[in-house]
Amino acid sequence: MIKVILLGSGNVAVHLSRAFEKSKNIEFIQRYSRSKNNNDFFDKSIPIIHDISRLKIADIYIIAISDDAIIEFSEQLKFNQGLVVHTAGNLPVEALQCTANKGVLYPLQTFSKDQNLNFKNIPISIETEKESDYTLLKSLAETLSDKVYSFDYQQRKHIHLAAVFANNFSNHMFKIAYDICEKQNISFEILKPLIAETANKIAKSDPQNAQTGPAKRNDKKVIENHLQQLDKNQQEIYKLVTKSIINTYQSK
Amino acid sequence: MIKVILLGSGNVAVHLSRAFEKSKNIEFIQRYSRSKNNNDFFDKSIPIIHDISRLKIADIYIIAISDDAIIEFSEQLKFNQGLVVHTAGNLPVEALQCTANKGVLYPLQTFSKDQNLNFKNIPISIETEKESDYTLLKSLAETLSDKVYSFDYQQRKHIHLAAVFANNFSNHMFKIAYDICEKQNISFEILKPLIAETANKIAKSDPQNAQTGPAKRNDKKVIENHLQQLDKNQQEIYKLVTKSIINTYQSK
Repeated sequence: MIKVILLGSGNVAVHLSRAFEKSKNIEFIQRYSRSKNNNDFFDKSIPIIHDISRLKIADIYIIAISDDAIIEFSEQLKFNQGLVVHTAGNLPVEALQCTANKGVLYPLQTFSKDQNLNFKNIPISIETEKESDYTLLKSLAETLSDKVYSFDYQQRKHIHLAAVFANNFSNHMFKIAYDICEKQNISFEILKPLIAETANKIAKSDPQNAQTGPAKRNDKKVIENHLQQLDKNQQEIYKLVTKSIINTYQSK
Repeated sequence: MIKVILLGSGNVAVHLSRAFEKSKNIEFIQRYSRSKNNNDFFDKSIPIIHDISRLKIADIYIIAISDDAIIEFSEQLKFNQGLVVHTAGNLPVEALQCTANKGVLYPLQTFSKDQNLNFKNIPISIETEKESDYTLLKSLAETLSDKVYSFDYQQRKHIHLAAVFANNFSNHMFKIAYDICEKQNISFEILKPLIAETANKIAKSDPQNAQTGPAKRNDKKVIENHLQQLDKNQQEIYKLVTKSIINTYQSK
């Protein structure tokens, strides 16, 4: 049994907590939270503390707070035992300012409290500063997920960046589609089967095989027609993404 | 029973054909194809012709060929009986140059021959030039799908445009994510659960509720860090989409 303490109460903390509770190899002994926010999303049987000095002794301390708070928060962890890990894709292991051994456990997913996720399916990238800690962190990660990777910081920050395009930016394309529909009094519901199938194709193939549309065909007539229907901001994005698609597929 | 003839052999034709075969209210009497392409994707029991003059008499003739070929192709249809419809989102009903009555049956989906789809779940937008044809086309559409809409050309072409953002452009964001991973020797597989969840969130919510990431938070430090890792084309897209996200969520 790996004794685990979770520090945080955001979306990642909620989902880690649920995964800990399901695991037979993890003893989830305590949770630290600065505030009482989101308490309802956590199992009430896990002791919660709001004072960092009351932390128990554990094998792994997992910091699941917002990226920009990690450095300052970790300065408060003055103990030497155990392994302290953060969960940020975009920060090196050295971002941790604690005195104990350090590592990273980065789950690559978009988390919402009200969404149920199967953690077993979520890729986790792990890294430890000291090699001697690696086996412990790996066994924790493998308890949580079937997809455990060992990427270094250089790779991990590129995965984080790729995730911005794959999630944040694709979602903004959905938002522009939403705005176009809304302006014509069309329910966004009509696009949902298309969006589901867009992701479904990617699950079975690569994006270059799934690409279709006027930009892929370099169909100037349709592109010109589309541009006339858009506002200035939408036009800028349409032009740039279309140019990028044309360049991607013409050069091959 | 509605007697239907299908004209075309591309992705839309393949999926319409499969849906016709499943329906008890449709008599799929003939298929026209210019070439012998994709013949293996169609039911061999449906008579196929390659000479347009051999078309039988049907209630509805469905043209499922590429958008830019519809005008010229429809000029060849010299008969007066029945209803001729095209399946293009981006063309008015008047694009049809035939002498018979005209209409549109636009299925809003991205079609691949090798992907199985449940047509019942695909939104179909219908339109007829003459009101007297509407009931017939509606009953055909309702046989194919549970989601039949009656949008005019103005709305339909905006749906087509919204679909470019929702499908083509989001897929290009996946492609850039793919390229970023590939450059670091990271398998794109690691992003697939994230992409699946991105679409899953949209199925239950709206894109504005699902938006997360450094642009949404206007986190200048992370944005600057990300820009340094990208090539020039990727940088341009990152900057413009980030600016658009910031503008979208700051003004609210």
